[in-house]
Amino acid sequence: MNAVAEHTLHLDAKVRKDAQNRLLSAKGHLESILKMLEGEPYCVDVLKQISAVQGALSKVGDIVLRSHLEHHVASAAQRGDTDKLVDELMEVLKYR
Amino acid sequence: MNAVAEHTLHLDAKVRKDAQNRLLSAKGHLESILKMLEGEPYCVDVLKQISAVQGALSKVGDIVLRSHLEHHVASAAQRGDTDKLVDELMEVLKYR
Amino acid sequence: MNAVAEHTLHLDAKVRKDAQNRLLSAKGHLESILKMLEGEPYCVDVLKQISAVQGALSKVGDIVLRSHLEHHVASAAQRGDTDKLVDELMEVLKYR
Amino acid sequence: MNAVAEHTLHLDAKVRKDAQNRLLSAKGHLESILKMLEGEPYCVDVLKQISAVQGALSKVGDIVLRSHLEHHVASAAQRGDTDKLVDELMEVLKYR
Repeated sequence: MNAVAEHTLHLDAKVRKDAQNRLLSAKGHLESILKMLEGEPYCVDVLKQISAVQGALSKVGDIVLRSHLEHHVASAAQRGDTDKLVDELMEVLKYR
Repeated sequence: MNAVAEHTLHLDAKVRKDAQNRLLSAKGHLESILKMLEGEPYCVDVLKQISAVQGALSKVGDIVLRSHLEHHVASAAQRGDTDKLVDELMEVLKYR
Repeated sequence: MNAVAEHTLHLDAKVRKDAQNRLLSAKGHLESILKMLEGEPYCVDVLKQISAVQGALSKVGDIVLRSHLEHHVASAAQRGDTDKLVDELMEVLKYR
Repeated sequence: MNAVAEHTLHLDAKVRKDAQNRLLSAKGHLESILKMLEGEPYCVDVLKQISAVQGALSKVGDIVLRSHLEHHVASAAQRGDTDKLVDELMEVLKYR
Protein backbone atom coordinates (compact mmCIF):
# COMPACT_ATOMS: atom_id res chain seq x y z
CA MET A 1 0.00 0.00 0.00
CA ASN A 2 1.49 3.36 -0.85
CA ALA A 3 1.71 6.18 1.70
CA VAL A 4 -1.19 8.15 0.24
CA ALA A 5 -3.52 5.18 0.36
CA GLU A 6 -2.49 4.27 3.87
CA HIS A 7 -3.15 7.83 4.96
CA THR A 8 -6.72 7.68 3.75
CA LEU A 9 -7.77 4.30 5.14
CA HIS A 10 -9.18 5.78 8.32
CA LEU A 11 -12.46 4.81 9.86
CA ASP A 12 -15.25 6.97 8.43
CA ALA A 13 -16.09 9.89 10.78
CA LYS A 14 -19.79 9.13 11.11
CA VAL A 15 -19.11 5.44 11.79
CA ARG A 16 -16.51 6.47 14.33
CA LYS A 17 -19.05 8.59 16.21
CA ASP A 18 -21.57 5.75 16.15
CA ALA A 19 -18.95 3.30 17.41
CA GLN A 20 -17.98 5.69 20.21
CA ASN A 21 -21.58 5.98 21.41
CA ARG A 22 -22.09 2.25 21.34
CA LEU A 23 -18.82 1.53 23.15
CA LEU A 24 -19.70 4.11 25.82
CA SER A 25 -22.98 2.32 26.33
CA ALA A 26 -21.19 -1.07 26.49
CA LYS A 27 -18.85 0.40 29.10
CA GLY A 28 -21.85 1.51 31.17
CA HIS A 29 -23.26 -1.98 30.87
CA LEU A 30 -19.95 -3.49 32.06
CA GLU A 31 -20.02 -1.12 35.05
CA SER A 32 -23.49 -2.36 35.94
CA ILE A 33 -22.26 -5.97 35.86
CA LEU A 34 -19.40 -4.95 38.17
CA LYS A 35 -21.95 -3.41 40.54
CA MET A 36 -24.03 -6.59 40.33
CA LEU A 37 -20.95 -8.59 41.35
CA GLU A 38 -20.62 -6.58 44.57
CA GLY A 39 -23.78 -8.35 45.70
CA GLU A 40 -24.46 -12.09 45.42
CA PRO A 41 -25.87 -12.57 41.95
CA TYR A 42 -27.13 -15.79 40.44
CA CYS A 43 -24.61 -17.16 37.89
CA VAL A 44 -27.10 -17.23 35.04
CA ASP A 45 -27.97 -13.57 35.54
CA VAL A 46 -24.27 -12.72 35.23
CA LEU A 47 -23.98 -14.87 32.10
CA LYS A 48 -26.97 -13.11 30.53
CA GLN A 49 -25.49 -9.68 31.16
CA ILE A 50 -22.10 -10.70 29.76
CA SER A 51 -23.87 -12.05 26.64
CA ALA A 52 -25.69 -8.74 26.26
CA VAL A 53 -22.41 -6.79 26.31
CA GLN A 54 -20.91 -9.21 23.81
CA GLY A 55 -23.90 -8.69 21.54
CA ALA A 56 -23.40 -4.93 21.76
CA LEU A 57 -19.70 -5.30 20.91
CA SER A 58 -20.55 -7.57 17.97
CA LYS A 59 -22.84 -4.84 16.71
CA VAL A 60 -20.01 -2.27 16.90
CA GLY A 61 -17.75 -4.74 15.11
CA ASP A 62 -20.36 -5.19 12.37
CA ILE A 63 -20.65 -1.44 11.84
CA VAL A 64 -16.88 -1.00 11.58
CA LEU A 65 -16.58 -4.07 9.34
CA ARG A 66 -19.29 -2.84 6.97
CA SER A 67 -17.61 0.55 6.71
CA HIS A 68 -14.25 -1.10 6.07
CA LEU A 69 -15.70 -3.30 3.32
CA GLU A 70 -17.46 -0.34 1.66
CA HIS A 71 -14.74 2.26 1.94
CA HIS A 72 -11.56 0.22 1.76
CA VAL A 73 -11.94 -3.41 0.69
CA ALA A 74 -14.24 -2.67 -2.26
CA SER A 75 -11.64 -0.28 -3.72
CA ALA A 76 -8.59 -2.44 -2.98
CA ALA A 77 -8.12 -3.52 -6.60
CA GLN A 78 -7.97 0.14 -7.65
CA ARG A 79 -5.35 0.93 -5.01
CA GLY A 80 -3.48 -2.37 -5.53
CA ASP A 81 -3.50 -3.52 -1.89
CA THR A 82 -5.94 -6.43 -2.21
CA ASP A 83 -3.63 -9.07 -0.73
CA LYS A 84 -2.85 -7.03 2.37
CA LEU A 85 -6.49 -6.13 3.00
CA VAL A 86 -7.83 -9.63 2.47
CA ASP A 87 -5.14 -11.22 4.66
CA GLU A 88 -5.77 -8.93 7.60
CA LEU A 89 -9.55 -9.18 7.19
CA MET A 90 -9.49 -12.99 7.22
CA GLU A 91 -7.32 -12.82 10.34
CA VAL A 92 -9.82 -10.57 12.10
CA LEU A 93 -12.85 -12.62 11.01
CA LYS A 94 -11.28 -15.73 12.53
CA TYR A 95 -12.12 -14.44 15.98
CA ARG A 96 -15.72 -13.63 15.30
CA MET B 1 -36.82 -24.78 43.29
CA ASN B 2 -37.57 -24.25 46.96
CA ALA B 3 -36.67 -21.03 48.75
CA VAL B 4 -33.66 -22.48 50.54
CA ALA B 5 -32.13 -23.78 47.34
CA GLU B 6 -32.73 -20.52 45.53
CA HIS B 7 -31.04 -18.68 48.36
CA THR B 8 -27.87 -20.70 47.95
CA LEU B 9 -27.45 -20.62 44.17
CA HIS B 10 -25.13 -17.62 44.29
CA LEU B 11 -21.98 -17.25 42.31
CA ASP B 12 -19.06 -18.70 44.27
CA ALA B 13 -17.13 -15.93 46.11
CA LYS B 14 -13.72 -16.75 44.60
CA VAL B 15 -15.15 -16.93 41.08
CA ARG B 16 -16.92 -13.65 41.72
CA LYS B 17 -13.62 -11.95 42.66
CA ASP B 18 -11.92 -13.37 39.56
CA ALA B 19 -14.81 -12.21 37.36
CA GLN B 20 -14.63 -8.73 38.90
CA ASN B 21 -10.93 -8.41 38.14
CA ARG B 22 -11.37 -9.59 34.59
CA LEU B 23 -14.32 -7.30 33.94
CA LEU B 24 -12.39 -4.33 35.35
CA SER B 25 -9.60 -5.13 32.92
CA ALA B 26 -12.11 -5.45 30.04
CA LYS B 27 -13.52 -2.06 31.02
CA GLY B 28 -10.01 -0.57 30.87
CA HIS B 29 -9.58 -2.12 27.44
CA LEU B 30 -12.88 -0.59 26.27
CA GLU B 31 -11.69 2.79 27.52
CA SER B 32 -8.51 2.45 25.47
CA ILE B 33 -10.60 1.72 22.34
CA LEU B 34 -12.65 4.85 23.09
CA LYS B 35 -9.42 6.85 23.33
CA MET B 36 -8.25 5.29 20.05
CA LEU B 37 -11.49 6.48 18.42
CA GLU B 38 -10.74 10.09 19.35
CA GLY B 39 -7.95 9.88 16.77
CA GLU B 40 -8.27 8.47 13.24
CA PRO B 41 -7.68 4.76 13.63
CA TYR B 42 -7.55 2.18 10.88
CA CYS B 43 -10.73 0.06 10.84
CA VAL B 44 -8.91 -3.23 11.22
CA ASP B 45 -7.09 -2.01 14.33
CA VAL B 46 -10.46 -1.17 15.89
CA LEU B 47 -11.84 -4.58 14.89
CA LYS B 48 -8.84 -6.31 16.51
CA GLN B 49 -9.29 -4.46 19.78
CA ILE B 50 -13.03 -5.20 19.86
CA SER B 51 -12.24 -8.89 19.28
CA ALA B 52 -9.77 -8.81 22.15
CA VAL B 53 -12.39 -7.44 24.54
CA GLN B 54 -14.88 -10.05 23.34
CA GLY B 55 -12.30 -12.75 23.98
CA ALA B 56 -11.81 -11.43 27.52
CA LEU B 57 -15.58 -11.40 28.12
CA SER B 58 -15.86 -14.95 26.76
CA LYS B 59 -13.24 -15.98 29.28
CA VAL B 60 -15.26 -14.42 32.13
CA GLY B 61 -18.34 -16.19 30.80
CA ASP B 62 -16.46 -19.50 30.77
CA ILE B 63 -15.37 -19.07 34.37
CA VAL B 64 -18.89 -18.27 35.55
CA LEU B 65 -20.34 -21.10 33.45
CA ARG B 66 -17.89 -23.65 34.84
CA SER B 67 -18.69 -22.59 38.38
CA HIS B 68 -22.41 -22.79 37.66
CA LEU B 69 -22.07 -26.29 36.21
CA GLU B 70 -19.98 -27.50 39.16
CA HIS B 71 -21.88 -25.88 42.00
CA HIS B 72 -25.44 -25.80 40.72
CA VAL B 73 -26.16 -27.85 37.60
CA ALA B 74 -24.33 -30.97 38.80
CA SER B 75 -26.47 -31.04 41.95
CA ALA B 76 -29.77 -30.17 40.24
CA ALA B 77 -31.14 -33.75 40.45
CA GLN B 78 -30.57 -33.70 44.22
CA ARG B 79 -32.40 -30.40 44.60
CA GLY B 80 -35.08 -31.30 42.05
CA ASP B 81 -34.69 -28.22 39.83
CA THR B 82 -33.14 -29.88 36.77
CA ASP B 83 -35.73 -28.64 34.28
CA LYS B 84 -35.40 -25.02 35.35
CA LEU B 85 -31.59 -25.06 35.33
CA VAL B 86 -31.29 -26.83 32.00
CA ASP B 87 -33.83 -24.55 30.32
CA GLU B 88 -32.14 -21.36 31.43
CA LEU B 89 -28.68 -22.73 30.63
CA MET B 90 -29.67 -23.69 27.08
CA GLU B 91 -31.13 -20.21 26.66
CA VAL B 92 -27.88 -18.57 27.76
CA LEU B 93 -25.70 -20.87 25.64
CA LYS B 94 -27.68 -19.89 22.54
CA TYR B 95 -25.94 -16.54 22.53
CA ARG B 96 -22.41 -17.83 22.87
CA MET C 1 -16.83 -42.66 37.45
CA ASN C 2 -17.53 -46.27 38.34
CA ALA C 3 -18.20 -48.88 35.69
CA VAL C 4 -21.94 -49.04 36.31
CA ALA C 5 -22.34 -45.28 35.90
CA GLU C 6 -20.22 -45.19 32.78
CA HIS C 7 -22.33 -47.94 31.32
CA THR C 8 -25.50 -45.88 31.69
CA LEU C 9 -24.32 -42.53 30.34
CA HIS C 10 -25.53 -43.26 26.84
CA LEU C 11 -27.37 -40.82 24.66
CA ASP C 12 -31.13 -41.10 25.28
CA ALA C 13 -32.80 -43.29 22.60
CA LYS C 14 -35.38 -40.71 21.51
CA VAL C 15 -32.74 -38.01 21.23
CA ARG C 16 -30.55 -40.40 19.29
CA LYS C 17 -33.34 -41.00 16.75
CA ASP C 18 -33.94 -37.26 16.41
CA ALA C 19 -30.20 -36.64 15.95
CA GLN C 20 -30.02 -39.36 13.30
CA ASN C 21 -32.86 -37.82 11.30
CA ARG C 22 -31.35 -34.37 11.48
CA LEU C 23 -27.88 -35.58 10.52
CA LEU C 24 -29.33 -37.49 7.58
CA SER C 25 -30.97 -34.28 6.44
CA ALA C 26 -27.70 -32.35 6.91
CA LYS C 27 -25.94 -34.99 4.81
CA GLY C 28 -28.52 -34.51 2.04
CA HIS C 29 -27.92 -30.78 2.23
CA LEU C 30 -24.15 -31.30 1.93
CA GLU C 31 -24.75 -33.46 -1.14
CA SER C 32 -26.78 -30.67 -2.72
CA ILE C 33 -23.89 -28.24 -2.13
CA LEU C 34 -21.55 -30.73 -3.79
CA LYS C 35 -23.92 -30.88 -6.76
CA MET C 36 -24.01 -27.07 -6.83
CA LEU C 37 -20.20 -27.04 -7.00
CA GLU C 38 -20.25 -29.13 -10.17
CA GLY C 39 -21.66 -26.04 -11.87
CA GLU C 40 -20.33 -22.50 -11.52
CA PRO C 41 -22.04 -21.14 -8.43
CA TYR C 42 -21.73 -17.65 -7.06
CA CYS C 43 -19.53 -17.62 -3.90
CA VAL C 44 -22.18 -16.07 -1.69
CA ASP C 45 -24.70 -18.78 -2.61
CA VAL C 46 -22.18 -21.41 -1.52
CA LEU C 47 -21.52 -19.52 1.72
CA LYS C 48 -25.25 -19.36 2.45
CA GLN C 49 -25.68 -23.10 1.96
CA ILE C 50 -22.68 -23.89 4.15
CA SER C 51 -24.14 -21.63 6.86
CA ALA C 52 -27.44 -23.46 6.61
CA VAL C 53 -25.76 -26.83 7.18
CA GLN C 54 -23.82 -25.41 10.11
CA GLY C 55 -27.07 -24.13 11.59
CA ALA C 56 -28.57 -27.61 11.25
CA LEU C 57 -25.53 -29.17 12.94
CA SER C 58 -25.71 -26.61 15.75
CA LYS C 59 -29.30 -27.64 16.28
CA VAL C 60 -28.28 -31.32 16.57
CA GLY C 61 -25.54 -30.28 18.98
CA ASP C 62 -28.08 -28.36 21.08
CA ILE C 63 -30.38 -31.36 21.29
CA VAL C 64 -27.58 -33.69 22.35
CA LEU C 65 -26.24 -31.10 24.80
CA ARG C 66 -29.64 -30.57 26.41
CA SER C 67 -30.11 -34.31 26.82
CA HIS C 68 -26.62 -34.63 28.33
CA LEU C 69 -27.30 -31.81 30.80
CA GLU C 70 -30.66 -33.30 31.82
CA HIS C 71 -29.73 -36.94 32.00
CA HIS C 72 -26.09 -36.87 33.03
CA VAL C 73 -24.74 -33.52 34.21
CA ALA C 74 -27.69 -32.76 36.52
CA SER C 75 -27.13 -36.05 38.35
CA ALA C 76 -23.33 -35.85 38.47
CA ALA C 77 -23.21 -34.93 42.17
CA GLN C 78 -25.23 -38.06 42.97
CA ARG C 79 -22.86 -40.26 40.96
CA GLY C 80 -19.75 -38.41 42.12
CA ASP C 81 -18.34 -37.67 38.66
CA THR C 82 -18.90 -33.89 38.60
CA ASP C 83 -15.29 -32.94 37.87
CA LYS C 84 -15.00 -35.28 34.90
CA LEU C 85 -18.32 -34.20 33.39
CA VAL C 86 -17.71 -30.49 33.84
CA ASP C 87 -14.18 -30.67 32.43
CA GLU C 88 -15.22 -32.50 29.29
CA LEU C 89 -18.29 -30.28 28.84
CA MET C 90 -16.24 -27.07 29.08
CA GLU C 91 -13.84 -28.55 26.52
CA VAL C 92 -16.67 -29.28 24.09
CA LEU C 93 -18.35 -25.90 24.60
CA LYS C 94 -15.09 -24.14 23.66
CA TYR C 95 -15.68 -25.06 20.05
CA ARG C 96 -19.23 -23.87 19.83
CA MET D 1 -24.45 -5.18 -11.36
CA ASN D 2 -24.60 -5.47 -15.14
CA ALA D 3 -25.07 -8.80 -16.87
CA VAL D 4 -21.42 -9.18 -17.87
CA ALA D 5 -20.21 -8.64 -14.32
CA GLU D 6 -22.77 -11.05 -12.89
CA HIS D 7 -21.73 -13.64 -15.37
CA THR D 8 -18.13 -13.52 -14.19
CA LEU D 9 -18.64 -13.60 -10.41
CA HIS D 10 -18.28 -17.37 -10.23
CA LEU D 11 -16.32 -19.20 -7.60
CA ASP D 12 -12.72 -19.62 -8.73
CA ALA D 13 -12.14 -23.11 -10.26
CA LYS D 14 -9.25 -24.08 -7.97
CA VAL D 15 -11.15 -22.98 -4.88
CA ARG D 16 -14.16 -24.89 -6.11
CA LYS D 17 -12.11 -28.09 -6.37
CA ASP D 18 -10.69 -27.57 -2.88
CA ALA D 19 -14.17 -26.91 -1.49
CA GLN D 20 -15.50 -30.07 -3.16
CA ASN D 21 -12.77 -32.22 -1.60
CA ARG D 22 -13.33 -30.75 1.84
CA LEU D 23 -17.11 -31.12 1.63
CA LEU D 24 -16.74 -34.73 0.52
CA SER D 25 -14.58 -35.35 3.56
CA ALA D 26 -17.14 -33.60 5.80
CA LYS D 27 -19.84 -35.80 4.33
CA GLY D 28 -17.76 -38.90 5.17
CA HIS D 29 -17.39 -37.59 8.70
CA LEU D 30 -21.17 -37.08 8.99
CA GLU D 31 -21.67 -40.65 7.82
CA SER D 32 -19.33 -41.89 10.56
CA ILE D 33 -21.40 -39.98 13.16
CA LEU D 34 -24.53 -41.61 11.78
CA LYS D 35 -22.87 -45.00 12.14
CA MET D 36 -21.84 -44.08 15.70
CA LEU D 37 -25.50 -43.30 16.46
CA GLU D 38 -26.55 -46.81 15.51
CA GLY D 39 -24.74 -47.93 18.66
CA GLU D 40 -25.07 -46.34 22.10
CA PRO D 41 -22.56 -43.52 22.09
CA TYR D 42 -21.74 -41.21 24.97
CA CYS D 43 -23.27 -37.75 24.40
CA VAL D 44 -19.95 -35.93 24.68
CA ASP D 45 -18.39 -38.13 21.99
CA VAL D 46 -21.23 -37.19 19.65
CA LEU D 47 -20.81 -33.50 20.52
CA LYS D 48 -17.08 -33.70 19.77
CA GLN D 49 -17.68 -35.26 16.36
CA ILE D 50 -20.34 -32.68 15.47
CA SER D 51 -17.91 -29.92 16.46
CA ALA D 52 -15.25 -31.45 14.24
CA VAL D 53 -17.58 -31.40 11.21
CA GLN D 54 -18.54 -27.82 11.99
CA GLY D 55 -14.87 -26.90 12.12
CA ALA D 56 -14.34 -28.52 8.71
CA LEU D 57 -17.32 -26.61 7.26
CA SER D 58 -16.02 -23.35 8.75
CA LYS D 59 -12.75 -24.01 6.97
CA VAL D 60 -14.58 -24.47 3.63
CA GLY D 61 -16.49 -21.27 4.34
CA ASP D 62 -13.22 -19.42 5.01
CA ILE D 63 -11.73 -20.59 1.74
CA VAL D 64 -14.79 -19.52 -0.27
CA LEU D 65 -14.98 -16.23 1.64
CA ARG D 66 -11.32 -15.42 1.01
CA SER D 67 -11.73 -16.13 -2.69
CA HIS D 68 -14.85 -13.97 -2.82
CA LEU D 69 -13.06 -11.07 -1.10
CA GLU D 70 -10.04 -11.35 -3.42
CA HIS D 71 -11.80 -11.92 -6.70
CA HIS D 72 -15.06 -10.05 -6.29
CA VAL D 73 -15.29 -7.71 -3.30
CA ALA D 74 -11.88 -6.09 -3.85
CA SER D 75 -12.91 -5.12 -7.39
CA ALA D 76 -16.45 -4.03 -6.54
CA ALA D 77 -15.67 -0.30 -6.81
CA GLN D 78 -14.36 -0.88 -10.36
CA ARG D 79 -17.52 -2.74 -11.35
CA GLY D 80 -19.82 -0.43 -9.42
CA ASP D 81 -21.61 -3.10 -7.39
CA THR D 82 -20.16 -2.29 -3.95
CA ASP D 83 -23.50 -1.83 -2.18
CA LYS D 84 -24.88 -5.15 -3.39
CA LEU D 85 -21.73 -7.10 -2.50
CA VAL D 86 -21.31 -5.55 0.93
CA ASP D 87 -24.99 -6.04 1.84
CA GLU D 88 -25.02 -9.71 0.92
CA LEU D 89 -21.62 -10.30 2.59
CA MET D 90 -22.74 -8.73 5.87
CA GLU D 91 -25.85 -10.90 5.73
CA VAL D 92 -23.78 -14.07 5.29
CA LEU D 93 -21.27 -13.10 7.99
CA LYS D 94 -24.10 -12.69 10.50
CA TYR D 95 -24.42 -16.45 10.68
CA ARG D 96 -20.79 -17.22 11.23
